[in-house]
Amino acid sequence: MPKAKSKSKKTVLFDRVAFIGIGLIGASMALAMRRAGLVRTVVACARRPKTRKAALDLGIANEVTKDYAKAVAGADLVVIATPVSTNGAIAKAIAAHLKPGAIVTDVGSVKQAVIDAVAPHIPKGVHFVPGHPIAGTEHSGPESGFAELFDNRWTILTPLPRTSPKAVAKVADMWRKMGAKVDTMKPDHHDMVLAITSHLPHLCAYTVVGTATDLAGDLQQEVIKYSASGFRDFTRVAASDPVMWRDIFLSNRDAVLDILQRFTEDLAGMQKHIRRGDGEALEKMFTRTRAIRRGIIEAKQA
Amino acid sequence: MPKAKSKSKKTVLFDRVAFIGIGLIGASMALAMRRAGLVRTVVACARRPKTRKAALDLGIANEVTKDYAKAVAGADLVVIATPVSTNGAIAKAIAAHLKPGAIVTDVGSVKQAVIDAVAPHIPKGVHFVPGHPIAGTEHSGPESGFAELFDNRWTILTPLPRTSPKAVAKVADMWRKMGAKVDTMKPDHHDMVLAITSHLPHLCAYTVVGTATDLAGDLQQEVIKYSASGFRDFTRVAASDPVMWRDIFLSNRDAVLDILQRFTEDLAGMQKHIRRGDGEALEKMFTRTRAIRRGIIEAKQA
Repeated sequence: MPKAKSKSKKTVLFDRVAFIGIGLIGASMALAMRRAGLVRTVVACARRPKTRKAALDLGIANEVTKDYAKAVAGADLVVIATPVSTNGAIAKAIAAHLKPGAIVTDVGSVKQAVIDAVAPHIPKGVHFVPGHPIAGTEHSGPESGFAELFDNRWTILTPLPRTSPKAVAKVADMWRKMGAKVDTMKPDHHDMVLAITSHLPHLCAYTVVGTATDLAGDLQQEVIKYSASGFRDFTRVAASDPVMWRDIFLSNRDAVLDILQRFTEDLAGMQKHIRRGDGEALEKMFTRTRAIRRGIIEAKQA
Repeated sequence: MPKAKSKSKKTVLFDRVAFIGIGLIGASMALAMRRAGLVRTVVACARRPKTRKAALDLGIANEVTKDYAKAVAGADLVVIATPVSTNGAIAKAIAAHLKPGAIVTDVGSVKQAVIDAVAPHIPKGVHFVPGHPIAGTEHSGPESGFAELFDNRWTILTPLPRTSPKAVAKVADMWRKMGAKVDTMKPDHHDMVLAITSHLPHLCAYTVVGTATDLAGDLQQEVIKYSASGFRDFTRVAASDPVMWRDIFLSNRDAVLDILQRFTEDLAGMQKHIRRGDGEALEKMFTRTRAIRRGIIEAKQA
């Protein structure tokens, strides 16, 4: 039986990819695409001269510009990788300059709000494939990017009912070749899952660190000094990009407020157990949370 | 001028050290003491045959026993390294068998409650030096122990006004030779600092993971699958030993409830900003928390 032709050679998926915003995620994507040989030319669009210089100097982009029209002209793929509140205005600004048949994707941590803001601007014949790579670090900027960021992590695509299946398949293929695993789901479901797995933990971490920030000077110095075990991890989470997180909480408001309500009730329960000295209830609670950790270790996401 | 004799040779500080409880912390201490050549014989006292076998097999202890009296007989240093609720009963059980001049120390995450429970049982001529190494992992048991656990981490000693300064100095010397940095403070102050840096973050993590545990089956599976970024770190914190943490919250109740109250108020503030869509307030909050992270990185505790 004749064997299918080997595909060991790297396949160029996109001749020209434009990144609108080249921070941690954009830069890591560009580097992961290069690693897999998926792209010939990378264009990075950034407002700040410093960012553009870094993208060029670090070999992330072949060309840089601050001009949206110039960035997307002739691009087969446009990646919007800026804080989500800016995505609507960006879609509006690039719309007229998109190449027919091009794919537009994004990397926002919130999907319904991005779809509402971006989709109306996308012209006929251009394919919008909303996406969210579940990966990141507490660092910001192109100099924080690295090609391995998405290895063995999930990327969630939330295509609209009218999105071309071929375009979705191509973006999924791209993410897999960049090392990620790919899943698709409905945007509102994505927003609920992420409210729990990411937005609530970040809100807690920001708040705990904020509470500590309000302490008197001496006590605050000691909190920094003795931060090992617990607090240190929270400060890492709470060091994430402020503008990005501001936008996430504003654009996923309903899901965040819903899960926050449940959390507040559960925390009040804990408080009651502590106040009453109910050791049995506390131990029971602390034991069942171990099961989820085991699930994560088994799912190899630890 | 004649030079002081070099002290490069390892100094035995204690001929015989008894560990009551040989979990993560006890085992790591024994291994760190051995690494620094501070001890000739390590005795481990544990209830479970499995724990005693592991302590022997892993070279953590030279002798094992389940008998308190046998464990502490002839010991120059006794380390109580069990969940804090047991410390009073242990002190009572070992009191009559302690060698005159011996030092008793502990490793509890709460200090005032331990002092209240242990100090009354310590006989005259024996020195009680309460201590707390700010180090740990989410793992439990002697097999999780490692000699490097305390390297460059703080150990806080909270001696009583009547504690012999010589005994305090010896315990401090021991911790420094085990790689730790040493500080002393008043027990109630320790408990307040730790309520912020450790107990509140753990309570948040346990609660967030608990809230997720209550989700419907399908959603819970997705929470595990997409745990990267935020939630994953919380599950690690919330995988810590349940009995140890039950005891911490019960014995540091007042400080925990006090800081929890402040946290709850701050969280309500965050909730209000999100509900009102006050991006400016959120961004301001998320920016100032970065300063504490920088402090921790500068203090080399990151």
